[in-house]
Amino acid sequence: MAGNTFGQVFRVTTWGESHGTAIGAVIDGCPSGIALDLEKIQREMARRRPGQGGASSPRKEPDTIEILSGVFTPEGEGAPRTTGTPISLVIFNKDAHSKSYDNLRDVFRPGHGDFTYQAKYGIRDHRGGGRASARETAARVAAGAVAAQVLAQHGIEVVACTIALGGIRIARRDMATIHDNPYCCPDPEAAQRMEQRVREVRGRGDTVGGIVEIRGSCPPGLGEPVFDKLEADLAHGLMSIGAVKGVEFGAGFAAADLLGSENNDSICTSGFASNNAGGVLAGISSGQELVMRVAVKPIPSIAIEQTTINRAGEAVTIKVGGRHDISAIPRIIPVCEAMVRLTLLDHLLRQSAQAVEK
Amino acid sequence: MAGNTFGQVFRVTTWGESHGTAIGAVIDGCPSGIALDLEKIQREMARRRPGQGGASSPRKEPDTIEILSGVFTPEGEGAPRTTGTPISLVIFNKDAHSKSYDNLRDVFRPGHGDFTYQAKYGIRDHRGGGRASARETAARVAAGAVAAQVLAQHGIEVVACTIALGGIRIARRDMATIHDNPYCCPDPEAAQRMEQRVREVRGRGDTVGGIVEIRGSCPPGLGEPVFDKLEADLAHGLMSIGAVKGVEFGAGFAAADLLGSENNDSICTSGFASNNAGGVLAGISSGQELVMRVAVKPIPSIAIEQTTINRAGEAVTIKVGGRHDISAIPRIIPVCEAMVRLTLLDHLLRQSAQAVEK
Amino acid sequence: MAGNTFGQVFRVTTWGESHGTAIGAVIDGCPSGIALDLEKIQREMARRRPGQGGASSPRKEPDTIEILSGVFTPEGEGAPRTTGTPISLVIFNKDAHSKSYDNLRDVFRPGHGDFTYQAKYGIRDHRGGGRASARETAARVAAGAVAAQVLAQHGIEVVACTIALGGIRIARRDMATIHDNPYCCPDPEAAQRMEQRVREVRGRGDTVGGIVEIRGSCPPGLGEPVFDKLEADLAHGLMSIGAVKGVEFGAGFAAADLLGSENNDSICTSGFASNNAGGVLAGISSGQELVMRVAVKPIPSIAIEQTTINRAGEAVTIKVGGRHDISAIPRIIPVCEAMVRLTLLDHLLRQSAQAVEK
Amino acid sequence: MAGNTFGQVFRVTTWGESHGTAIGAVIDGCPSGIALDLEKIQREMARRRPGQGGASSPRKEPDTIEILSGVFTPEGEGAPRTTGTPISLVIFNKDAHSKSYDNLRDVFRPGHGDFTYQAKYGIRDHRGGGRASARETAARVAAGAVAAQVLAQHGIEVVACTIALGGIRIARRDMATIHDNPYCCPDPEAAQRMEQRVREVRGRGDTVGGIVEIRGSCPPGLGEPVFDKLEADLAHGLMSIGAVKGVEFGAGFAAADLLGSENNDSICTSGFASNNAGGVLAGISSGQELVMRVAVKPIPSIAIEQTTINRAGEAVTIKVGGRHDISAIPRIIPVCEAMVRLTLLDHLLRQSAQAVEK
Repeated sequence: MAGNTFGQVFRVTTWGESHGTAIGAVIDGCPSGIALDLEKIQREMARRRPGQGGASSPRKEPDTIEILSGVFTPEGEGAPRTTGTPISLVIFNKDAHSKSYDNLRDVFRPGHGDFTYQAKYGIRDHRGGGRASARETAARVAAGAVAAQVLAQHGIEVVACTIALGGIRIARRDMATIHDNPYCCPDPEAAQRMEQRVREVRGRGDTVGGIVEIRGSCPPGLGEPVFDKLEADLAHGLMSIGAVKGVEFGAGFAAADLLGSENNDSICTSGFASNNAGGVLAGISSGQELVMRVAVKPIPSIAIEQTTINRAGEAVTIKVGGRHDISAIPRIIPVCEAMVRLTLLDHLLRQSAQAVEK
Repeated sequence: MAGNTFGQVFRVTTWGESHGTAIGAVIDGCPSGIALDLEKIQREMARRRPGQGGASSPRKEPDTIEILSGVFTPEGEGAPRTTGTPISLVIFNKDAHSKSYDNLRDVFRPGHGDFTYQAKYGIRDHRGGGRASARETAARVAAGAVAAQVLAQHGIEVVACTIALGGIRIARRDMATIHDNPYCCPDPEAAQRMEQRVREVRGRGDTVGGIVEIRGSCPPGLGEPVFDKLEADLAHGLMSIGAVKGVEFGAGFAAADLLGSENNDSICTSGFASNNAGGVLAGISSGQELVMRVAVKPIPSIAIEQTTINRAGEAVTIKVGGRHDISAIPRIIPVCEAMVRLTLLDHLLRQSAQAVEK
Repeated sequence: MAGNTFGQVFRVTTWGESHGTAIGAVIDGCPSGIALDLEKIQREMARRRPGQGGASSPRKEPDTIEILSGVFTPEGEGAPRTTGTPISLVIFNKDAHSKSYDNLRDVFRPGHGDFTYQAKYGIRDHRGGGRASARETAARVAAGAVAAQVLAQHGIEVVACTIALGGIRIARRDMATIHDNPYCCPDPEAAQRMEQRVREVRGRGDTVGGIVEIRGSCPPGLGEPVFDKLEADLAHGLMSIGAVKGVEFGAGFAAADLLGSENNDSICTSGFASNNAGGVLAGISSGQELVMRVAVKPIPSIAIEQTTINRAGEAVTIKVGGRHDISAIPRIIPVCEAMVRLTLLDHLLRQSAQAVEK
Repeated sequence: MAGNTFGQVFRVTTWGESHGTAIGAVIDGCPSGIALDLEKIQREMARRRPGQGGASSPRKEPDTIEILSGVFTPEGEGAPRTTGTPISLVIFNKDAHSKSYDNLRDVFRPGHGDFTYQAKYGIRDHRGGGRASARETAARVAAGAVAAQVLAQHGIEVVACTIALGGIRIARRDMATIHDNPYCCPDPEAAQRMEQRVREVRGRGDTVGGIVEIRGSCPPGLGEPVFDKLEADLAHGLMSIGAVKGVEFGAGFAAADLLGSENNDSICTSGFASNNAGGVLAGISSGQELVMRVAVKPIPSIAIEQTTINRAGEAVTIKVGGRHDISAIPRIIPVCEAMVRLTLLDHLLRQSAQAVEK
């Protein structure tokens, strides 16, 4: 109801504010008996941490995950296993500079949720954006990292990369190179131009947007017809990321200009001849690769003077200080992967619920 | 779980297959005391009915809504009122030609759910696409028409129009003209070219896609932070429509190429200076107009020979007969409106749940 | 939210009023491929129908179930199979005498929901009790009869019987005899005294209550710890039946007077030595027989003058006419069975969701 | 799905094991702007803490609540207010003696969830009962204490007392005296005999059960017809408490022996003449006092030798050490109150969702 829970079987509830004591997630519905590799979870956290490439905030958060419940190390085993009970994950906030937000107590920053939170709740934690801060996504990444370990047992993998940043688009896709540059960009040459662009824009106190593409392997049969089509639930998950303003599957918006004869993916005895569908037919996965893209808007916190109003409704100007990213990319990449993983695992378990073995 | 229900407070469950006895919807959670104008509901059904413009199937369905429960006409009143109990809406199928689908019993049509339904369920009703048929959306439109009457009491209106069809984009927006052409296109000149394009493509047995834009008025404060952001739930609803392959809000994918200083909507004492956000900030409505667009893929049923396989996994060719639309546009337009209405009403009621009056 | 849906995976939504056009249920989440025996469903309906023994109303409803969706008869098979899509069940009302309720339009009958529905909704369908009528339970029995056919494949059976009626308690349990008397009473001698008691009370225009015991076979492992303990969900389901005012498991209220050493069920290599737990430990089924009992209050519609008030708040007297049962027993028996079946099947599927096969 | 969440609008998710790092609760859906009195919450915790009267375990847990999120102290105010975002409550475990459970690693204690957890999950945290421990209810009491502060604004109060313990029933009800004895017993003389009985049973290493009665004030109109009747949801909540084996409302099981003319509560111009209904009619609160009772089984951990089996299926004997209560009463009393409060607040908010102001 209040929207802090995602999933129906593998249910993740996140909590916490940017400058509160801690943030965290409770996972309910994780299958029991899964051996958890805690280092892998921590590595996933590191990918979302500030301080990556020229586009990231210098806020220093170790983002150390503590697991407070739901696991148990059986005698003679080295790693904890899930017990089927709720897994409580917590990350204590270490480097919150709340003071630098004092001047924002009564001002509505353009492009931020300040105005809408005030309108909805009549009260808001203004420090660092409170609940609306991207910091909340650290809890999603933690939960997604748990999901990844369950999915791995079913051969499901999810990888995201940057295909556009600051107006620069990739010209080729070499997935082997995505970890060679801070933007997870599969085109090394484009990655260089992106870095240059980011530096230039940062100099002006401005920010940039981009496009992230996420691909995943997926067995056929996931997704529910009608309202919970796989694309619908994936879109729900991806659009729930703050900076995302659009999502498309397979040919996506380009399909609007295609003929049926061009867009249809013929089926051969060896499989589908193309993948304009992005791996989903009638809301159910076909076994082809899942392909989706999200539009990421530029970070609204800019160091350029903007006009806005304060709580009293008076006109004021604002220049946002604090420590901010120049782009949500690349830190949004593990968040996109997390949301796709959470969605796929949830649908895998939903599918299992309907296929009770006789 | 099985995905045939939409909404959390105003919950709509649809049921029925294209060539079954009937299709229908059950609305649970409709506020009591709403006087229902049945003719208005029926008019909304008429907008989704086959036989509109050159792009529609000639299947003849009167789509007469019967309300089996949940309303009561108080003594001395002329119209039924909702009682707060479930409203059961049913539409009996009249013009199903199941015979023409006999040859499809064992063949997987490209671009359709035949393959994926078989993979998921191990059984499927092949007649007219069964549950995967767009006919299911008639039940959504009926439920959306009930929602519209509740929303009207709160001053919330939703209107959709076609901004691209078969590669033709609008050059201007004159909303007053959208009912003057069968495509709900706000550019009369573009509408003419669309009609021409549709006729030409139909001649070749092919189909076209397009883009629908939906706008809605909305009070500030709707939408839940984090996972159920207003955009996330709207995307969920819109992406659950069979032919939709992408959705974007405000500047959408174009925002990926903007700078923060260009994309931010400044706030003046008189309101927002622009609407790149599409009416939503941090997942909560700002009071600005909601603006979203969906990419509609071309109808996969084409009268051109395609290669595919049958249930035995053998290569076959297929040319889809039956009575089909050339484009999901314009019949998809009331469906898009319905999904936006259902989402907005649900969030209006959710917001109300959290604001219990003291 | 509005409470007309039961279950999380096998979700049943009922709709309809006592004197409306029809009542019905939509089942979402039924596994696909289940061959449905329609006659068995109809036989279950017959058990709940009016006109059984001296305690039942003479209203004549054939209660013929029509299945409008969600099934498909594969070529060469004689019976329909579930397809995994929603199953819409409808029962048209045939013998509603709304006129006889005209005098109740503005009067609040003691023991009925007239007052509370008016308080909650500000409007109510007074004819035959509207939505609050026990007629609604016909839809539950229909859905429960579908559930029974799925459960049967897993060896799960549920049987209820009457252990007290009108103050007469059974002295022995011979389950083989429960179909030899109209009260499903396992003590033939007590059954005769019950019949006598009912006749005598009917003569005075009064009504009686009783106790129903429900037993079920159940594999170990069903039920979720903490809030959705198997007993909690069974209690939820059983207490949702209008006339039920109490529910207990195993030793139940008698356990309050036992010592731990008396109440604990010892475990032997051959199984449990007793069953004070009623088949559930820590909210999870142990594999022992499930045993529960419900207290059924006397029907509030009595042909004896009572004092009450009308909508204007004025004191009036009332003597309830219409066609009413003398006791909810025995017609409540298949309803109790249905609620237990729906709960067990839902938990069987929930358990399956968490145990995705690797 | 996995059952660790309660409520639909005011949603409480608990997590944690008896001997893990911590236990806690996340509340999602709490209305914003509520000033929280933290001392009152802590006082409620104290009522559930071990070490009360002769019946309680000597385990020493301060049960200090830490609120990690969801509150904010506005400038110039002394107390934190809820912000409408999730409230994360955590209680670190301080006095866990896991060693004393080492011998239980492979043994199934009679009357406990050891066997069923193993059957369901294939793995279990045996230390102190793990997730099945009554320690989990501390998190419920914390959440219930927050709910109490919201309910207080609506004039809703809930009080529970002991009406039977170890076979001793109360003879009179003087609610003013319930805090004068450790059992919250409204009959001082019975309370003395209960204390004596507990001492005597403790000497034998045995344990006792009892009955708790809960009463609450409640405005008319709460509760949803059909499946989520107020009694059904209250029963769900109360039966989800480990030791509870039965629940009844108003006259409860006694109603089974009454005539309709005896059980019906006549309505006068000044209100209801009696309260056999326990404050609920047709599942909706009538405005009368809510009255319900729960049967509490004796604690299964007894210091008397019992026969059972181990994981290998071999017969063993067991005498349960550790620090245990002699009865779940009185510590279960604030837990019962918490579950009733959570249910009432949830229904208050649900009702509000359906009554959106026009």
